[in-house]
Amino acid sequence: MQTFQANTYHLPPLASESAQAMRQIVNGLAKPIASLGRLEELAIRLAGIEATTSLRLRQKTLLVFAADHGVTAEHVSATPKKVTIVQAGNMLAGHTAVAALAIAAHCQVQVIDIGIDSQRTFSKLINAKIAYGTQNIAQSPAMTREQALKSIKIGYATALAAINNGSEILAVGELGVGNTTTASAVVAACLQCNAAEVVGRGSNISDAKLAHKISIVQQALTRNQPDSTDPIDILAKVGGFEFGGKVGAMLAAAEHHTPLILDGFISYAAALLAQKIAPTITNYLVPSHVSHEKGSQRALQQLGLEPYFDLQLCVGEGTGAVMLMPWLDELAAILTHMNTLADMAIVYKK
Amino acid sequence: MQTFQANTYHLPPLASESAQAMRQIVNGLAKPIASLGRLEELAIRLAGIEATTSLRLRQKTLLVFAADHGVTAEHVSATPKKVTIVQAGNMLAGHTAVAALAIAAHCQVQVIDIGIDSQRTFSKLINAKIAYGTQNIAQSPAMTREQALKSIKIGYATALAAINNGSEILAVGELGVGNTTTASAVVAACLQCNAAEVVGRGSNISDAKLAHKISIVQQALTRNQPDSTDPIDILAKVGGFEFGGKVGAMLAAAEHHTPLILDGFISYAAALLAQKIAPTITNYLVPSHVSHEKGSQRALQQLGLEPYFDLQLCVGEGTGAVMLMPWLDELAAILTHMNTLADMAIVYKK
Repeated sequence: MQTFQANTYHLPPLASESAQAMRQIVNGLAKPIASLGRLEELAIRLAGIEATTSLRLRQKTLLVFAADHGVTAEHVSATPKKVTIVQAGNMLAGHTAVAALAIAAHCQVQVIDIGIDSQRTFSKLINAKIAYGTQNIAQSPAMTREQALKSIKIGYATALAAINNGSEILAVGELGVGNTTTASAVVAACLQCNAAEVVGRGSNISDAKLAHKISIVQQALTRNQPDSTDPIDILAKVGGFEFGGKVGAMLAAAEHHTPLILDGFISYAAALLAQKIAPTITNYLVPSHVSHEKGSQRALQQLGLEPYFDLQLCVGEGTGAVMLMPWLDELAAILTHMNTLADMAIVYKK
Repeated sequence: MQTFQANTYHLPPLASESAQAMRQIVNGLAKPIASLGRLEELAIRLAGIEATTSLRLRQKTLLVFAADHGVTAEHVSATPKKVTIVQAGNMLAGHTAVAALAIAAHCQVQVIDIGIDSQRTFSKLINAKIAYGTQNIAQSPAMTREQALKSIKIGYATALAAINNGSEILAVGELGVGNTTTASAVVAACLQCNAAEVVGRGSNISDAKLAHKISIVQQALTRNQPDSTDPIDILAKVGGFEFGGKVGAMLAAAEHHTPLILDGFISYAAALLAQKIAPTITNYLVPSHVSHEKGSQRALQQLGLEPYFDLQLCVGEGTGAVMLMPWLDELAAILTHMNTLADMAIVYKK
């Protein structure tokens, strides 16, 4: 594994020959040019990532990084903190939103305790606990620089293990009450903007709570002064363990030619950190749905990513990422079963 | 079966008690209120249609009505007319875009020859041929009033047979070179607007061809003078057989509490005709994707329907409708597997 200094992480270039070959395959299908719309762009993107036109899209794994946030002491969330561990158990039992969606999408779900503030555990919960939650970013840094680096390493190792076990598609999700607050601070630090420009309603908080949340995020930024040029500094000062986990998973996926599907706002925040470590990583990320958290559009613009759908989901957990997965199966069917123009010997005349 | 006079067709009212009960079920799931976004609205809509909260979403059938259009003599399409029969065969063999998508979506595909201009046939092609294509609408009415009524009856009978054979979800698609021209004429007649306001590029025609297509649609409207208050008159004068087939399928689905998924522009045109026969039919229709044909937004506004996604598909055949189907399976998984707030005994505090 390489180190995570800003702008130094080396990734393999996209396989432009495979992408170009896929463009020709798609153009050669028996249909008007470009008529499969964004499915064509998706196919080309995946071919560039996987370095093949024989896309591997079957074996899907969602990595859910779960951690708690000290900033919940500031009453920024509508949800009690203990919900993180409770939902980790429910997710492993197949009863949360993303767990239910994953069943229909034939997606394996791994839940990684990277810093839940609870002594409880579950047999299938992967124990990689760095600490019992972060510190309260409104008062101090979230974690040490060493903990930040450790969270990335854990994410990297987790994703690599999944890839080595046959995962062809990775996705990232999260559990962590308070993490839209943290994500807002990370996004603001990455984009160098004010809290009010990025803070949204998270799990559906009231107007009064929203104003409070904005002031807390601004306080976290003012007090900690994260260095916008140093992703590890941002992660350590105003981030959370699950963000580092996602960053590491992204780096591992990119290095191993494995597409990684983003979810919503928390994913975008982690991707902004990963982008500061390895600017070309966005080539390897597959957006899924549009988050409506306030900072989302700016984050997506910075990442250069355009999500494929908008169902106004705001439940987190990786739900948007998993909703994209059936469309990967649909894409695979297109590439497997459709006739080519050569098969048809028909030329579409403009 | 009832007759198809404007505004006289009686449909059962939506099952508002089931819809209301579904709203409570969805609100009772262990997640922040409304956080499943448009999936919640979809669940409520489906419950109202099916008159139950135990949604039946498994058995899916796409009805593809295939017919030719005399107006292709005016060179409005980039695709040769013979592609209609060729693609009917390819579709039945599993090799067109929608056939490929349907394999992954576990959707049965029926192809109904309701007026293909060819003597060829295929063993699985359902023969309901009314004529060898329509007349050229730029010169004369597309069909007789009797043929228009017959096309609706065929669609009705086809959908009813599918429902009686266990189909729980219907979708409509089409094959018919030239049918975006016809659809534009139907939409313009239904909305009482000019050709230029609704005509788009269909299968990706050039600027010059687009201008020509607009003039042909305007000529069809001027010459035939369809009565905007009489859907059968519109269908007969500027429509096509596959439009009538879709209208009939919509009426049968609505009468039998079966959701029917729309596809793109041709579906919208047929739905506008169905709406003129039975104004409440739009309650029973499930939109899928956004068509980018020019008249689409106005048509959707008139129908009061908001599609669930936009992948910039413009291949027709029912592709958008089939792409929605995996999300129905995802919705079913949500309703089957997710914990309720009562299970969790957690109250989300605003």
